[in-house]
Amino acid sequence: MKIITAKRAGFCFGVKRAVDIAFEVAEKKKDGVFTLGPIIHNPQVVGKLNDAGVKDVKDVRSLRNKQTRAVIVRTHGVPENAMDRLGKDGHTIIDATCPFVKKAQHYAKLLKEEGYKIVILGDREHPEVKGLVSYAGKGAIVVKSADEYPRKTGKVGVVVQTTQNVETLKKLVSVAVEHTKELKVYNTICNSTALRLKETEEMARKADVMVIVGGKNSANTTQLARLCETLGVRTYHIETSEELKDSWFKGVQVVGLTAGASTPDWIIKDIKKSIKDIGGRLTYGHQKRRA
Amino acid sequence: MKIITAKRAGFCFGVKRAVDIAFEVAEKKKDGVFTLGPIIHNPQVVGKLNDAGVKDVKDVRSLRNKQTRAVIVRTHGVPENAMDRLGKDGHTIIDATCPFVKKAQHYAKLLKEEGYKIVILGDREHPEVKGLVSYAGKGAIVVKSADEYPRKTGKVGVVVQTTQNVETLKKLVSVAVEHTKELKVYNTICNSTALRLKETEEMARKADVMVIVGGKNSANTTQLARLCETLGVRTYHIETSEELKDSWFKGVQVVGLTAGASTPDWIIKDIKKSIKDIGGRLTYGHQKRRA
Repeated sequence: MKIITAKRAGFCFGVKRAVDIAFEVAEKKKDGVFTLGPIIHNPQVVGKLNDAGVKDVKDVRSLRNKQTRAVIVRTHGVPENAMDRLGKDGHTIIDATCPFVKKAQHYAKLLKEEGYKIVILGDREHPEVKGLVSYAGKGAIVVKSADEYPRKTGKVGVVVQTTQNVETLKKLVSVAVEHTKELKVYNTICNSTALRLKETEEMARKADVMVIVGGKNSANTTQLARLCETLGVRTYHIETSEELKDSWFKGVQVVGLTAGASTPDWIIKDIKKSIKDIGGRLTYGHQKRRA
Repeated sequence: MKIITAKRAGFCFGVKRAVDIAFEVAEKKKDGVFTLGPIIHNPQVVGKLNDAGVKDVKDVRSLRNKQTRAVIVRTHGVPENAMDRLGKDGHTIIDATCPFVKKAQHYAKLLKEEGYKIVILGDREHPEVKGLVSYAGKGAIVVKSADEYPRKTGKVGVVVQTTQNVETLKKLVSVAVEHTKELKVYNTICNSTALRLKETEEMARKADVMVIVGGKNSANTTQLARLCETLGVRTYHIETSEELKDSWFKGVQVVGLTAGASTPDWIIKDIKKSIKDIGGRLTYGHQKRRA
């Protein structure tokens, strides 16, 4: 059984930066370190940070009765008013927002200032999108596909959740341009997402089974899994090696292994080793039967 | 034989306005009235204007040794420097540029001032596009389809020749958004063009033969004819009734008749009458054979 591992599996630039910042701050401050929501969408990394003394709280209000020494802003960013509130409440802010998300927030604000009706392509429940909505201001609309595009004829500005698929954006602007006299689009999809999706697609075309590693709450990991399913490959989305089952790999020649942007290297390595072990067991069992 | 005539056949708002202006000026000034290039792309209308004393000249230079009382700027507009030159040379300028073309020129200039690399969707040989290029400035690129879109990643601004098909624009922006971080699109396609194309498509689906009337040099008329051909209907693009042939209508049940934006009503009526006459002749001949 052959295992192909994606070159672009795991931590992207923004996630690596955020996690490094969090561990650094934890080491310096020792205690009183908080994050607003989980710093990245990976329960295992969040667990390790918790062990290092970094606690995550739901919102700014939850910090009111706490002695903080640093509040780390998660990689997906937070709404503008949460950022303001942190400052007004006198917390030391460590901004670990991904620089690409920061850029998207900046463009959302710019479009608002320029008088555009703003359309955000993304998942309205995702924290990154909630942040973008706050910068885009009242009247901003979140759509998850071209079908939801509002039939407007005025000035429309578009920003995109950084982990969206470019094909969805292409369809959106193609519909938008017919209904909008002036259309300004910031393609804020990050390159890392685009390249990871591309590599995953290529792998899925060669593999019998795809194993996608990452938080079940991670949008970009889920997107990788969905892409593989769409291509008709048997796909498993797991967080840790404990979820692996021998039966998944019976009769399988090629396994494709990739991971979302928030999946740490040690989890990917652990899973790769476990799949190898399963492959060994299946081959050994097979030989035994033949003997 | 049934003849369906398009509701939107013939003169659009901009063309009607330009032709009315030209005849009015001709009547007021009597002589010394010129247009820069043909005022619209219809030889028969240009011929009538010529009879009324309006001469068309190729360029501003050709006016140098002439006594002018008014120079009419054609409906497709002229390049910015030609406009400047007319003023500097002391001519009385009557601007009959279509207000929608004027808007597209304004947006091209605006995009240039805002530092966008400008892409114009249109036919680079068309006078309207030549005008747009002059406002867009050096470095502007004219493309006739998405295939020609330059692979740029910076700020790109798009304006569109008013008579382009919206499907071509949709494909263009869909490609553009993948290669461009900031994309600003002014959809300057005029509504009249879009609706005329839509109506023509609906007619072509019902008709056995389509007759498209308008100047052979008219881009929007040619586009109507191409659309019908693409839909697999036998199509004839003619300028006057003299080009009609009886053989085109043998065995035909339904004829679709439409005309480009620069085709005057009297030509459409004349052609409709001639087709009716042919229908009568064919039916009469048919009956004779049956008797």
